[in-house]
Amino acid sequence: MEGMPLSMGNLRTLPWYVAGSQVLGVACVVITGVWMGHYRGGYAWDGSAQFNVHPLCMVLGLVFLYGDAVLVYRVFRNETKRTVKILHALLHMIALVISIVGLVAVFDFHSSAKISHMYSLHSWCGMLTFVLFILQWLLGLGFFLFPWASAQLRSWYLPLHVFFGLLLLAMSVGSCLLGITEKLLFSIMETYPRFTSEGVLANTLGLLLVCFGVVVGYVVTREDFRRPPNPEEEALSVHFKTLSEGEIPSSP
Amino acid sequence: MEGMPLSMGNLRTLPWYVAGSQVLGVACVVITGVWMGHYRGGYAWDGSAQFNVHPLCMVLGLVFLYGDAVLVYRVFRNETKRTVKILHALLHMIALVISIVGLVAVFDFHSSAKISHMYSLHSWCGMLTFVLFILQWLLGLGFFLFPWASAQLRSWYLPLHVFFGLLLLAMSVGSCLLGITEKLLFSIMETYPRFTSEGVLANTLGLLLVCFGVVVGYVVTREDFRRPPNPEEEALSVHFKTLSEGEIPSSP
Repeated sequence: MEGMPLSMGNLRTLPWYVAGSQVLGVACVVITGVWMGHYRGGYAWDGSAQFNVHPLCMVLGLVFLYGDAVLVYRVFRNETKRTVKILHALLHMIALVISIVGLVAVFDFHSSAKISHMYSLHSWCGMLTFVLFILQWLLGLGFFLFPWASAQLRSWYLPLHVFFGLLLLAMSVGSCLLGITEKLLFSIMETYPRFTSEGVLANTLGLLLVCFGVVVGYVVTREDFRRPPNPEEEALSVHFKTLSEGEIPSSP
Repeated sequence: MEGMPLSMGNLRTLPWYVAGSQVLGVACVVITGVWMGHYRGGYAWDGSAQFNVHPLCMVLGLVFLYGDAVLVYRVFRNETKRTVKILHALLHMIALVISIVGLVAVFDFHSSAKISHMYSLHSWCGMLTFVLFILQWLLGLGFFLFPWASAQLRSWYLPLHVFFGLLLLAMSVGSCLLGITEKLLFSIMETYPRFTSEGVLANTLGLLLVCFGVVVGYVVTREDFRRPPNPEEEALSVHFKTLSEGEIPSSP
C-alpha cells in the first residue's frame, strides 16, 4: 500500500485531527484523575486508595500514551523512519512501565483486601490486552527495530502488526469501559440510576475514551494521511537487504 | 484501493476464517440463549423474563447478523456487486429489526420495574451504537443502493462507510461486554468472585464476542481477501455515470 498515490491536499486537516486526539486524551487522563482523586478518596500505595492508582495508570499508559505511540508515524513525517521507529518503541515502553505500575496497584489492593483476583470480565479482557501488548511490543522490536528479520518476514508481519496495534487500542478502550462500569456498580449502585454527578462524570469519561480511540484509529487508517515512502531509505534498508539475499522485493 | 494487485494464492485460507467466524457467532448466540434461558429464568414478553429478550436480540442482531452483513463482500465474490449490495442491506435490515425488538424489551422491562432509563455507560454506548447504525444504514442506502449520489460523492463516502462499519462492529461488541458486566454485577455480585459457572460462562461469552469481532475485522481489512474489481461492472456503473457527468473518475 506504501506505493499508492497520495493526495497531499488533504494533509492540511491532519493537524486538527491530531490536536483533537490530544485534547481528548488529556481530558480522559484529567477526568480519571479527578474521579479517583475527588470522588474515590485520592491516591496512596496502601489501603483502599491504592486501587485508585490502577485506573489512572491504565488510562495514561494503555490508552493515551499507547495512542500517541501509534500516532507518531502520522505526526513525524519528515524525520527518518528509524528515528520514528525508536520514538514509537520508546513511547510504548513508557506505556508498558506505567501499565505495570497500574497492574501491581490493583493486584496488591486485591491481596490486602482479600478480594479474588482475575474473576471478572474486565480482568480477563484487560489481562488479555496487556499480554498481547507485551507480545506485540517484543515482536515489533525483533522484526522492525533490530535487523533480525528478513525483508520478506518484515513485509509479512507489517500488516499483522498494524491490525493488532489497532485491535489492542480498541481492546484497551473497551477494558477501561468495563472497569468504569465495574467501579460504578461497586461504589454507587444505589445512586447511579439517579444520574448523580459521579455517575455522569464516569459515563462521560467512557464516551471520551471511545472518541479518543476513534480519532486515533481514523488518522492511522485514512489512506491520504499515510507517511510518504522515502525512496532513499527504502533502498538503504529493505531493498538492499532483499537484493543482498537474492530475492525479489515484495510490496509491504 | 480497488485497483490494487491481488495475490489470489492466499484466498484458500479465506473459507477457514469465514467458517471460524460462523462457529464463533453461533456459539455467542447459543451461549447468550443458554445464559438467559437456563440461569436467568427464560423468556417472556412481561415480568422480569422480558429483560432476557434484550441480550439475545442484541447479540443476534447487532453482533452476529451485523458481522455477517459485513462479510458478504468477501464471501460472495462472483455475484454481481448489485446482488451483494442488496444482500448487505437486507441482512443489516434484519439486524436492525431484531435489535429494535431487543431495545423495546429492555425499555418495557425498565418501565414496568420502575427502573430509570439510560443512566448507565452500557446504555449510553449501546444507544450511540444503535443511532449511528441507523444513520450508517440510511446513508448506505442513499449513497450506494439507490442512484442518488454522484460517483464522486460515492467514492468520497466509501472509506467513511467502511471505517464506521468496522467501528460500529467494535462498539456493538463493546456494548455487549458492558451489558454482560452489568448483568453479572446486578445478579451474582456475591458469588461472581468465586468463579461460579454462570460467571465463567458469561465471561467466556464476552471473550467469544471479542473473537468474533476480531475474525470479521481481520477478514474485511486483509488486503488480499478483497473482492476483485469487475471492469465490466465498473464501466456500467461508476465510470459511465462519471463520464456522463463529464468528470474524471477518482479512484475509490
